[in-house]
Amino acid sequence: MPRKLQDEDSILRKIADSFRSSSGQGLGKPIVLGIGDDAALLRPKPGHELILTCDWFLEGTHFLRDKHPPDSVGWKCLARALSDVAAMGGIPRCFLLSLALPETHTGRWLDLFLGGLRRASRKFRCFLAGGDTTRRNDILINITVVGEVRTGHAILRSGARPGDIIFVSGRLGEAELGLHVLRHNKGMASTKTALRRKHLYPEPRLALGQWLAQKGFPTAMMDLSDGLSTDLSGLCAASAVGASLNHSKVPQVRILAATPRRDYNSHQLALHGGDDYELLFTVPPRKTKFLPETFQGVSLTAIGRIVRGRKLLLLVENGRAMQLVPSGWDPFRKKL
Amino acid sequence: MPRKLQDEDSILRKIADSFRSSSGQGLGKPIVLGIGDDAALLRPKPGHELILTCDWFLEGTHFLRDKHPPDSVGWKCLARALSDVAAMGGIPRCFLLSLALPETHTGRWLDLFLGGLRRASRKFRCFLAGGDTTRRNDILINITVVGEVRTGHAILRSGARPGDIIFVSGRLGEAELGLHVLRHNKGMASTKTALRRKHLYPEPRLALGQWLAQKGFPTAMMDLSDGLSTDLSGLCAASAVGASLNHSKVPQVRILAATPRRDYNSHQLALHGGDDYELLFTVPPRKTKFLPETFQGVSLTAIGRIVRGRKLLLLVENGRAMQLVPSGWDPFRKKL
Repeated sequence: MPRKLQDEDSILRKIADSFRSSSGQGLGKPIVLGIGDDAALLRPKPGHELILTCDWFLEGTHFLRDKHPPDSVGWKCLARALSDVAAMGGIPRCFLLSLALPETHTGRWLDLFLGGLRRASRKFRCFLAGGDTTRRNDILINITVVGEVRTGHAILRSGARPGDIIFVSGRLGEAELGLHVLRHNKGMASTKTALRRKHLYPEPRLALGQWLAQKGFPTAMMDLSDGLSTDLSGLCAASAVGASLNHSKVPQVRILAATPRRDYNSHQLALHGGDDYELLFTVPPRKTKFLPETFQGVSLTAIGRIVRGRKLLLLVENGRAMQLVPSGWDPFRKKL
Repeated sequence: MPRKLQDEDSILRKIADSFRSSSGQGLGKPIVLGIGDDAALLRPKPGHELILTCDWFLEGTHFLRDKHPPDSVGWKCLARALSDVAAMGGIPRCFLLSLALPETHTGRWLDLFLGGLRRASRKFRCFLAGGDTTRRNDILINITVVGEVRTGHAILRSGARPGDIIFVSGRLGEAELGLHVLRHNKGMASTKTALRRKHLYPEPRLALGQWLAQKGFPTAMMDLSDGLSTDLSGLCAASAVGASLNHSKVPQVRILAATPRRDYNSHQLALHGGDDYELLFTVPPRKTKFLPETFQGVSLTAIGRIVRGRKLLLLVENGRAMQLVPSGWDPFRKKL
């Protein structure tokens, strides 16, 4: 049985030990100084800009203590922050972990959490550089990720122009359906099915984002974290444009016969479901022919077009157009 | 009456608007892109390393909703994170704000909080680059600060050598006594007295830290956040040395006649009191003659010496030596 830890130093030591072999410190590595001093030191690469992003991951708001395996909490808190780096076409460098825990969770729970976090850290080559820990009744996590991108090459939300074709990667609504399945299960979630994996262990589209930025295809890009309707609305607002979506083209989650309570609406899940961490991007029409149908096994699908004006339209059957109302995740409107 | 905000977008807009005139964005400024995209972009200065640090500031653990004025919460959450940059001799560049709030606090409380945060941001020239917001019953804050230091010039905790003289800035125990005074007051704290100001509006010793690093005086440095006994123990552990403190030399908080409940022990407050955000640093004996007695009005005091071995000794009257036990702040041992 892992011992429960009684003071902050032991917890910091446990975290540092857990990441020793993948710390990013040493010859030719980005982190000059990691955990154990007042702050971390990072040596930036010449000719690059830094990407900075932080993300809450809070018990009750973003995950449930009795439903989400600690390993998944560790993986996902980093993966979703990395998705913001992917959305700019950047390369992850390091992250800071702020962790507040009850004393009861400083033993086995912390070990499993660190295991998931370490797997994500290794897979996406984003090293632990520092952090802060404290005691708390709730489990609170905040992750700051530092990434890099060649100066002037970051893809922003604000570059979409009328006529650009709107693309998404993957299928939408899978993570939200995965969450529903998980909530209707008793006890801790099994990670066996693809839907649950999509919810518990999302894969930030780093390679795709970097490839798109390197090729210079997208005029604008962001990640799908709150749901297509909400995120597309954000991209359009930043670019001062509107969008016309082809409803039948939006790649939807497949609802399998084995899914419990089969009254889910795959249209609604694809339009408004959160947590997919796919990429949403716009490409000028003359460049779309250079885009493959899939990239490393992930589909790239044209779903509509950027238009003048600020409206979001959804084209349904027979050419009818409805207004698309942003209805995705907003932590000030609803809870997990 | 400021309106209460109902969704995350309005809260992000309010934060962005509040910092518009001091955003650090624009010609010659460090932030290429701030709030409103997936992440912030920062252009690092050539020949410099980045300092990265994050800090929790949580209701009930680090501040009290009914005792700490929102303006002070805003000031202090940034000031204490900046203190870690000061401790390395660095220059602040920008910060990320993660904020979780109850809906009831998105009106006047948020305005006052942002006012205090903005004042600290301007005073210490550390610009808001991005952040994350969410709804929560408790007020949760996490601050990430990015600073810069010339490559190879950061002062670490690990450089102290036997024979080095130990210095502190300012008087110790003031902030802890300020907290006691505040807790025994009814209602919200008045900011009139120096002690309360020291607790509510600490001043990170950025200019001192930069000056010391530039002159190359300290072999090791850290900030005093948890209390001298705990922090000196940390510095000694990082440097694999011990320390011998001269008790009578430690500059102690002055307990005034007007202080309510005058049974405070200024010795104990100075040795173990937290939250002072003064600097603790070690200087080789041959260099101490170049140190002034005060720097910009803040006293610099020699309080002891680094020794071989790993013991922390406290020299009291008649040359008697006691063991100094680290007894400062540790969030896994006690609560505010």
